[in-house]
Amino acid sequence: MRLATLRLPRRTAAVRIDGELAVEVGAPDVGMLLADPRWREVAAAADGARHPLSTADLAPVVPVPGKIICVGLNYRSHILEMGRELPEYPTVFAKFAEALIGPYDDIELPAVSRAMDWEAELAVIVGAEVRNASREEAEAAIAGYSVLNDVTARDYQSRTLQWLQGKTFEGTTPFGPFLVTPDEISGAMTMQCEVDGEVVQQADTADLVFSPGELIAYLSEILTLRPGDVIATGTPGGVGHARKPPRYLGDGSKVVTRIAGVGELVNTARRRA
Amino acid sequence: MRLATLRLPRRTAAVRIDGELAVEVGAPDVGMLLADPRWREVAAAADGARHPLSTADLAPVVPVPGKIICVGLNYRSHILEMGRELPEYPTVFAKFAEALIGPYDDIELPAVSRAMDWEAELAVIVGAEVRNASREEAEAAIAGYSVLNDVTARDYQSRTLQWLQGKTFEGTTPFGPFLVTPDEISGAMTMQCEVDGEVVQQADTADLVFSPGELIAYLSEILTLRPGDVIATGTPGGVGHARKPPRYLGDGSKVVTRIAGVGELVNTARRRA
Repeated sequence: MRLATLRLPRRTAAVRIDGELAVEVGAPDVGMLLADPRWREVAAAADGARHPLSTADLAPVVPVPGKIICVGLNYRSHILEMGRELPEYPTVFAKFAEALIGPYDDIELPAVSRAMDWEAELAVIVGAEVRNASREEAEAAIAGYSVLNDVTARDYQSRTLQWLQGKTFEGTTPFGPFLVTPDEISGAMTMQCEVDGEVVQQADTADLVFSPGELIAYLSEILTLRPGDVIATGTPGGVGHARKPPRYLGDGSKVVTRIAGVGELVNTARRRA
Repeated sequence: MRLATLRLPRRTAAVRIDGELAVEVGAPDVGMLLADPRWREVAAAADGARHPLSTADLAPVVPVPGKIICVGLNYRSHILEMGRELPEYPTVFAKFAEALIGPYDDIELPAVSRAMDWEAELAVIVGAEVRNASREEAEAAIAGYSVLNDVTARDYQSRTLQWLQGKTFEGTTPFGPFLVTPDEISGAMTMQCEVDGEVVQQADTADLVFSPGELIAYLSEILTLRPGDVIATGTPGGVGHARKPPRYLGDGSKVVTRIAGVGELVNTARRRA
């Protein structure tokens, strides 16, 4: 099953994707849908208003997650590129919901940064409340997968020891288009990031150091994860900052972020006047 | 004016503190109250149900802030204690709402950490939406001040480069008891943390490197701050981790965190069975 959050003239609506149609499932967005423990049955059985997908305006698939937890240094290839050792524990940091944009929205280049970089990531959306979860319980708590580009202001990221300020600029993080339930995914996923038509990142989720289930189990020892929480599982090698010379997004840069079987984000970077 | 969030048998209620009485102001908590642009007038004029303050069960003053932004290395004394240089930019990291507890609740010592440490802090609560604020606009956006102890799992904080996982353990961060509006505060505030009756931290907010107004202005260049958002402005010298040998909270440790004119948190650390 594929779910999305549709922008309509005066509201948003959670929808199930049936081929070329988006069918309303009765919740204002996918986050609110997931708050209902019966969300799978409700969404599968829903028979609400239909909208053509081809002209749909999509919001971030979960517009306001309770928590967005990002993982750093989680692809073997990216860790080696950054000159670091394979980690014993996941590196985690936060992003606030103000950073999120829809899957086809413009990426807002902040006036104060000149070093906006791409980071294609597999996003995991939590579908149940979990605390101190076993690996099995953690995997059962995955509502589905999505695509996220953790676009980062490298200059702000390295201003201090803590990365948050480079990671949470408003309107910089495309997220969607769909939540794809785990039954539609078989095995590892191939991820690609293209900038202006050039493939800059290419990886397989088999290269992840910590899998989605391991991440949920680990984080749930720290605090309760809840339906709608999002875990961005980290980016592989190929970021612009690691190039010599470094390459950043400019006004008009086109960024395509895709994961086979999950979805594709298409965004243009725009510097506000 | 002093505001708090009261726990009642089946609900919570934002209250105004009138001497020994807590007067309901018509919102379910202080965060929801602040969402009303007329919150000052509404709270000042409210004449709802009255409860004796002496027996009140208080929740975190804003129970579920949209954002909790913590500042590290913001007291000259603490920076020198940690062997670092005075910073050019504020170091910021996040905490999730699951970490918050009420001003008199027990601090939950996590089963997985053996290095829980205190960090007394002045908290600033945002009372208006601000983006790209000038210093003046930033100061006008302060709803009020409160007390927060950013209790930290030092072992988890240093597992990786990013501090988040040591900062957001569930049920570890007392916050309250009141929001005190700026008109009640004149000049710098004296802060103290006591552990088992011994004063372990003592500082004056005049020692802050970045003031509340400077922090709001800086953060608002990154993203929109909204009513109910919380900024924990950093801790001064005297943390247990900096002692030789280090000293951490144990089962039964009593922690008192007070800021003159703002309020006092009284919490007992408890290790769950």
